[in-house]
Amino acid sequence: MSEAAAARQDGPLALICGGGSLPLAVADFVAASGRKVVLFPLHGAAEGTPVERHRHHWIYVGQIGKFLRLARAEGCRDIVFIGAMVRPSIWQVHPDLVGLSFLRRTLAAYRGGDNHLISSMGKVLEGEGFRLLGAHEVAPQILMPQGAIGRQQPSERDRADIALGLDYLHAAGPFDVGQAVIVAGRHVLAVEAAEGTDAMLQRMVEMRANGRVRAAVGTGVLVKAPKPTQDRRFDLPSIGPKTIENALRAGLAGIAVVAGETIIAEPDLLRTAADKAGIFVVGVPAGASP
Amino acid sequence: MSEAAAARQDGPLALICGGGSLPLAVADFVAASGRKVVLFPLHGAAEGTPVERHRHHWIYVGQIGKFLRLARAEGCRDIVFIGAMVRPSIWQVHPDLVGLSFLRRTLAAYRGGDNHLISSMGKVLEGEGFRLLGAHEVAPQILMPQGAIGRQQPSERDRADIALGLDYLHAAGPFDVGQAVIVAGRHVLAVEAAEGTDAMLQRMVEMRANGRVRAAVGTGVLVKAPKPTQDRRFDLPSIGPKTIENALRAGLAGIAVVAGETIIAEPDLLRTAADKAGIFVVGVPAGASP
Repeated sequence: MSEAAAARQDGPLALICGGGSLPLAVADFVAASGRKVVLFPLHGAAEGTPVERHRHHWIYVGQIGKFLRLARAEGCRDIVFIGAMVRPSIWQVHPDLVGLSFLRRTLAAYRGGDNHLISSMGKVLEGEGFRLLGAHEVAPQILMPQGAIGRQQPSERDRADIALGLDYLHAAGPFDVGQAVIVAGRHVLAVEAAEGTDAMLQRMVEMRANGRVRAAVGTGVLVKAPKPTQDRRFDLPSIGPKTIENALRAGLAGIAVVAGETIIAEPDLLRTAADKAGIFVVGVPAGASP
Repeated sequence: MSEAAAARQDGPLALICGGGSLPLAVADFVAASGRKVVLFPLHGAAEGTPVERHRHHWIYVGQIGKFLRLARAEGCRDIVFIGAMVRPSIWQVHPDLVGLSFLRRTLAAYRGGDNHLISSMGKVLEGEGFRLLGAHEVAPQILMPQGAIGRQQPSERDRADIALGLDYLHAAGPFDVGQAVIVAGRHVLAVEAAEGTDAMLQRMVEMRANGRVRAAVGTGVLVKAPKPTQDRRFDLPSIGPKTIENALRAGLAGIAVVAGETIIAEPDLLRTAADKAGIFVVGVPAGASP
């Protein structure tokens, strides 16, 4: 059975869309593979996304009853939730009765010991006859491949920095801290925790300016890897053109991520951004130093 | 033999003074123990320190020939170097011939495999018949004792955060990264690398403001410990009233450091600052979770 035939057998895909360009990229990849997609853009998050390109129904985040009814009517069994989601204000939730019951059951499963709210959500959806999938399961094109995706390649020195960064992230893994470090000249110069990757890159800019970091501009690597505690179906690290821009501003030589475990959304955009910035973006094999 | 008699037998102590209040605190403690001190305040660093209180000779950082001659004339065999030292501009060094030779030999020892420049310096001074000591070896009063030094005590929750922070610092130890983390509600929220403790505390202020950190104000602990790779004779972590001020601004419940391996300079000042801020400052036993 061909991939396309398998996809058709699974029926149309319900894609709940948060903000950003990733949801539509996933929708396009899935549609290109021959599978029908039905978008459910979220009010307060997906405005501005050209959802008209696909069949779609706008919903509020709390309208789970409406969503399930529409998804069933469309013949969808598989659901993917993807995109940025600022915590909605209470006025944007618009919960329906099913939504309230869904929330109650999700929280009960979460308190029952699931590591992640979204895993709990998956369980409740299964009870309703649906299947919650990771975006990369329906559109593997959004994952980082192995090797460099642009013209620049890491040097031997960069590879040593990458190896040290991966070792550090591995050692810090059990603590469920951030997913990223900056390493230059075999020194860990910044560790991400709650501040996020962009704030850490901004810190590197400041440390170069105030003399805390004396490594030459054009050296150093942003190394990013999933936490061992992450549910890799729903919560992978991601990089985009903005990450590349910020890494360039931070004076780095490049970015290293784990191949097959990092979302890059639109590979062509990322390649163009990397070549324009003149820095490398490399995917290293999972579970190994490069 | 009494401590005072032992101190007299070792002769007067040569104290090379950088900036800040620590050098004079050490000098006062040593003098109070009955040992004579001779201060060598550094031009460009110790200005403003009331060195007149003790016998003293101002020197430039590069005048090592002059320093050794004066120290010998004063009968000093033991040398302590203490205080803040901004990298001197080339015009402030004023190297004499012995200084240049000293620098050459120190760098040779450093390249020969010493972990720290100051350890190399110690070796060269030994060759000259001197002994380079850590400030806490001559004034143990500047070290953090075990337990809380002010009125506030860590709660059970705080102790769990402290234990997690110490575990994290232990795991990250081999990487020679920073000496401090911020932990709240059993989550590591910030990790210090090249930016320094004060910058990390400032980050916590910002993460509370932008919603990245949602832990209640008045929860969370700054946990600080020496790196396993540090030369503990010359390079211990330190906290002072400014650290307490910044921890309060960061909304933390308190500060935990390793007893006997953290310089607190003037214990009374620190106690007053902790009580004024209403946060705890606790010394935990070395090599153990609290």
